[in-house]
Amino acid sequence: MGLTALAINCTLKRSPAESSCDLLLSQVLAELHKHGVAGERLRVADYDIKPGVTSDEGEGDDWPMFRQKVLAADILVLGTPIWLGHPSSLCQRVLERLDAMLGETDGQGRMIAVDRVACVAVVGNEDGAHNVAANLFQGLNDVGFSIPAVGSTYWVGEAMQGTDYKDLPQTPEKVAQTTAMMARHCAHLAGLLRQARYPAE
Amino acid sequence: MGLTALAINCTLKRSPAESSCDLLLSQVLAELHKHGVAGERLRVADYDIKPGVTSDEGEGDDWPMFRQKVLAADILVLGTPIWLGHPSSLCQRVLERLDAMLGETDGQGRMIAVDRVACVAVVGNEDGAHNVAANLFQGLNDVGFSIPAVGSTYWVGEAMQGTDYKDLPQTPEKVAQTTAMMARHCAHLAGLLRQARYPAE
Amino acid sequence: MGLTALAINCTLKRSPAESSCDLLLSQVLAELHKHGVAGERLRVADYDIKPGVTSDEGEGDDWPMFRQKVLAADILVLGTPIWLGHPSSLCQRVLERLDAMLGETDGQGRMIAVDRVACVAVVGNEDGAHNVAANLFQGLNDVGFSIPAVGSTYWVGEAMQGTDYKDLPQTPEKVAQTTAMMARHCAHLAGLLRQARYPAE
Amino acid sequence: MGLTALAINCTLKRSPAESSCDLLLSQVLAELHKHGVAGERLRVADYDIKPGVTSDEGEGDDWPMFRQKVLAADILVLGTPIWLGHPSSLCQRVLERLDAMLGETDGQGRMIAVDRVACVAVVGNEDGAHNVAANLFQGLNDVGFSIPAVGSTYWVGEAMQGTDYKDLPQTPEKVAQTTAMMARHCAHLAGLLRQARYPAE
Repeated sequence: MGLTALAINCTLKRSPAESSCDLLLSQVLAELHKHGVAGERLRVADYDIKPGVTSDEGEGDDWPMFRQKVLAADILVLGTPIWLGHPSSLCQRVLERLDAMLGETDGQGRMIAVDRVACVAVVGNEDGAHNVAANLFQGLNDVGFSIPAVGSTYWVGEAMQGTDYKDLPQTPEKVAQTTAMMARHCAHLAGLLRQARYPAE
Repeated sequence: MGLTALAINCTLKRSPAESSCDLLLSQVLAELHKHGVAGERLRVADYDIKPGVTSDEGEGDDWPMFRQKVLAADILVLGTPIWLGHPSSLCQRVLERLDAMLGETDGQGRMIAVDRVACVAVVGNEDGAHNVAANLFQGLNDVGFSIPAVGSTYWVGEAMQGTDYKDLPQTPEKVAQTTAMMARHCAHLAGLLRQARYPAE
Repeated sequence: MGLTALAINCTLKRSPAESSCDLLLSQVLAELHKHGVAGERLRVADYDIKPGVTSDEGEGDDWPMFRQKVLAADILVLGTPIWLGHPSSLCQRVLERLDAMLGETDGQGRMIAVDRVACVAVVGNEDGAHNVAANLFQGLNDVGFSIPAVGSTYWVGEAMQGTDYKDLPQTPEKVAQTTAMMARHCAHLAGLLRQARYPAE
Repeated sequence: MGLTALAINCTLKRSPAESSCDLLLSQVLAELHKHGVAGERLRVADYDIKPGVTSDEGEGDDWPMFRQKVLAADILVLGTPIWLGHPSSLCQRVLERLDAMLGETDGQGRMIAVDRVACVAVVGNEDGAHNVAANLFQGLNDVGFSIPAVGSTYWVGEAMQGTDYKDLPQTPEKVAQTTAMMARHCAHLAGLLRQARYPAE
């Protein structure tokens, strides 16, 4: 069975509003597809992921569906806009819900999310991509995801400017190259971990 | 008229659940009270602050009420638990809604939130307080708040342990001293800015 | 006696190499000058600030001279380039040496650096200014500095591009406005704290 | 040929001063040894790594020796104390020198550091480990290192306390378990990447 990827878009806007983050995620999934990875996109704002740090916060909570898809995929692509230099509140919400995985183990005592690869896609108007990537890397890695070489792709504009990624006349070449490299690395690492899982203690 | 403070608790739990952050905020308000500052506490989880970056996200959005109280107070005390080393999703939600203030000015062309003081109260089990304070300082300062000397108080336990601040037999002395100093500095700075507002251009 | 400012440039390059950070700091000092503040610039790379966390690391350590100037000034302007999204190693060195002030008090038991204002100037090619400001705000605030409304000014270019601030045909208008506002706020707050110092316990 | 690891200690103190970071790094290397990984430790403070962002800053620069050892090892263990919540200035210095690798490629056009695994060991008195790990993950990943599941181990004490890791009566069990798990994951991932290198474009 081929590798699969789940791309989670943490924009604050519900569908069908256009989203720069959505554009970048679709580019990541297109690159992953070239390496035989089948992808799916979910937009957090279209669902009701309740506040909390358990795997199921009860009635009306859409997280259990997300959780199932995260665990079913080999690759998690976490995409977020930058607000005030930080990941969006919906992105932090996803991390908080992933936090429950800290206490879950598989039959061999291994962390539940281990053997999965995570990467990051970040868009903002003008600054903050490295800080957002740093915080997502650490949060995702804490709960068991591995980060491939160059596990983030991003775009931001010049300081204090206002154009969006989705409104650029074309994707800057270096951004496209980084997206392609990240996808190549993700597919490679996920393939290795599929065949040779992390050992139990 | 005396100085006033608004304390916003960004715990993920609704009232009447106990909250370590609530305890720390009540201690901050008690110290502020000694300097003549009247305080009020709001718990974000008890309200519906909608995702978005405008001042009013429409039907059912409780942010306009928060916004009014933020602007009416001299001091904003932003309190948050730490999840995965970061401010809670509800705390980032508050920052995203404050973001709208970047584009609002008063009659003199000054930023709408200027002349107000902000401080930070952070609690977690084991790590992350400085990073959370750093991110909140920057977010709050970007939208116009001033930060007094030692504008944060916090508690975290030893690495990888699980006791909560609210379950400690007593508040550690150094934490209590820091809370008192922070409150003293907030009251002083808010008093100065009440009497001598930042000049317009 | 008029207000004074000390601007510390944490570029990795020694004089007389050109420095984007130097340009931004000179603009900050020019704006401060309009408000009657006399300024001085120091470039860390031209001196030998030794590793350590005491106020004097002995033979050949230039920090005692910096420390004296920091304490003599009303305003500290900490300027740094961005490397890998972080403050420069020389900037972190300055923070480490300021750390010793955590244990020093004046005759009234107040923190030694209290009553002083700090602001931040950050330049990089393409990303990281908010994160750097966040970390500097927190470090400087921890040791006793107050942060005025909008206490940072910065420039970065579009993601993954390579032009330097010093090579721009002209300073972007919004950057110049931010620099001017920050200086105005610094001068105002430093003036207030000169006249009404933070109270002792 | 067996796997090898290089552990870089970024304490501010020269040998033979005791270092908590050194203790944690020796524990990491001992765990790696159980998986057949031969390790070596270097303490930055004992050498002269000059400021700059090239691979060789000339006369007296010890970085070229470090660089050679980094590229010769399968695993880089970057260890740092926490100062003011941040990685030490010597740790940021190491990242700045690694930055030169952004522009270097091997014969196939791949990044020079790719196929290598990095992990992080962080010690402090009371807070900051997650933020330090986040920043090191991002910096190391940007230049091409892969991060295994749970790629950080750390110890900090309770908020505002002063005992050092090296002075604890014994290593806390959870810290020891995390160190062991991190080492197990590093050895596994480095073994996979030794046998199946990241593909070129």
